[in-house]
Amino acid sequence: MAIAFPRFVCSESSSIEEVIAASSSSSIPSPPPQPVFLTQDELKQIAAYKAVEFVESGMVLGLGTGSTAKYAVERIGELLQQGKLKNIVGIPTSKQTEEQALSVGIPLSDLDSHPTVDLAIDGADEVDPYLNLVKGRGGSLLREKMIEGACKKFVVIVDESKLVPYLGGSLLAMPVEIVPFCWKFTEERLRRLFQDSGSVTKLRTFKDSDEPFVTDNANYIVDLYFEKDIGDLNVASDLILRLPGVVEHGMFLNMATTVIVAGELGVTVKNK
Amino acid sequence: MAIAFPRFVCSESSSIEEVIAASSSSSIPSPPPQPVFLTQDELKQIAAYKAVEFVESGMVLGLGTGSTAKYAVERIGELLQQGKLKNIVGIPTSKQTEEQALSVGIPLSDLDSHPTVDLAIDGADEVDPYLNLVKGRGGSLLREKMIEGACKKFVVIVDESKLVPYLGGSLLAMPVEIVPFCWKFTEERLRRLFQDSGSVTKLRTFKDSDEPFVTDNANYIVDLYFEKDIGDLNVASDLILRLPGVVEHGMFLNMATTVIVAGELGVTVKNK
Repeated sequence: MAIAFPRFVCSESSSIEEVIAASSSSSIPSPPPQPVFLTQDELKQIAAYKAVEFVESGMVLGLGTGSTAKYAVERIGELLQQGKLKNIVGIPTSKQTEEQALSVGIPLSDLDSHPTVDLAIDGADEVDPYLNLVKGRGGSLLREKMIEGACKKFVVIVDESKLVPYLGGSLLAMPVEIVPFCWKFTEERLRRLFQDSGSVTKLRTFKDSDEPFVTDNANYIVDLYFEKDIGDLNVASDLILRLPGVVEHGMFLNMATTVIVAGELGVTVKNK
Repeated sequence: MAIAFPRFVCSESSSIEEVIAASSSSSIPSPPPQPVFLTQDELKQIAAYKAVEFVESGMVLGLGTGSTAKYAVERIGELLQQGKLKNIVGIPTSKQTEEQALSVGIPLSDLDSHPTVDLAIDGADEVDPYLNLVKGRGGSLLREKMIEGACKKFVVIVDESKLVPYLGGSLLAMPVEIVPFCWKFTEERLRRLFQDSGSVTKLRTFKDSDEPFVTDNANYIVDLYFEKDIGDLNVASDLILRLPGVVEHGMFLNMATTVIVAGELGVTVKNK
């Protein structure tokens, strides 16, 4: 389903709420068109607010991590404070999201206490035409996959720059979480798996440092880059997971039930 | 290949070296038979010493962990001290083995420096007729699988109590290493995978404690028990590895190249 998102209703003074309301309305606006260029952050916020429309009182919610998901967490907090949502339980996908959710007043739990999640909302680094995703450039792929794999509905929110013809197609990283023990050995085995696709690997480090980035689970991340399509994704997934030393990878296959894409031309909702 | 291991050469005063020498010899001994019952520890030692016959000077060796493998490590140390082996590099599969190997004078390295291992020697908890193994009751399954998956020859040493008609057939644990985050959730998903085989799961704890056992990689172990055969092992392996939260499992499929079994009736060497 594509929702028309008329550019002419976007004046610079429009709040995100007004933009969303207009994008959901079928009435033809009367004011003259006011062309505007939305920033990537504004597009992320539009997608996030749209996703929060799926949230109902009483739900157990998976709360994503990253620059797009943070807008959804913020919005859920607002609606709780306004009394428009009640009895929400949030399951955060990272320590970072846990802190944010607590700061905006979302009651939290975990999968051990709530093994069934009604709805998860999260961003993604890439979305292919079949709604397969690359996630984890923020480093939280394992917890995200555990929680989003346990939910009835998984709504993914992205700006249109994240759409790719095939996973890896952005030429940016596909992250793999590995144990620190003999990481160079595991990195080299990962690279070799996909050498026919021109694979390059890089151990992720903290910004401006040579120190390895450490995940919430005390593991490392190897970022994989491909020159071309890696073929059957389910086969690739099993090949990666069979390597001892690999904990999890950032391909989320057949998991998203809805993808909300915010772009210059409007908000598009794609359902599986 | 089955090597006859005549019980009548086993007097209580025989050293393990003498027993091994006799088992490799084709001459008929002259002293009258002296029936003797070997302990499980003696059988483990016999298998270990036999395995060390595969070791040659200059090799990079994977050093296993556990009550059987420790005899192999001890023996390699002895042969180095006697000058019968030279230029050995050992890659230990656990911190425990690292300490033992250093104490007997084996120079050590790791997979990052030596990504190709000539030979690994290790025990196993179960061996099926196709030389598939269950390992990891000692808790070192991940490092063992990384190192033993990187070797040209993998010699497994067991006493005959470890032979089973199918993996899980001992009714003892098949261990799975998991991340501590939401471990109850992962444990339940593991149990459900094999509920048709009457699966039971248990988080491993330290002896005489309720504290979870922690692996060398700072993870937990869930022990899986089955009432009956779990069917196709490769399918079972992929199902386990696909669960987010699972790091590695204790089924070592198509990895052993040789299994040495020490039993009351002799030493049997099974090759793949």
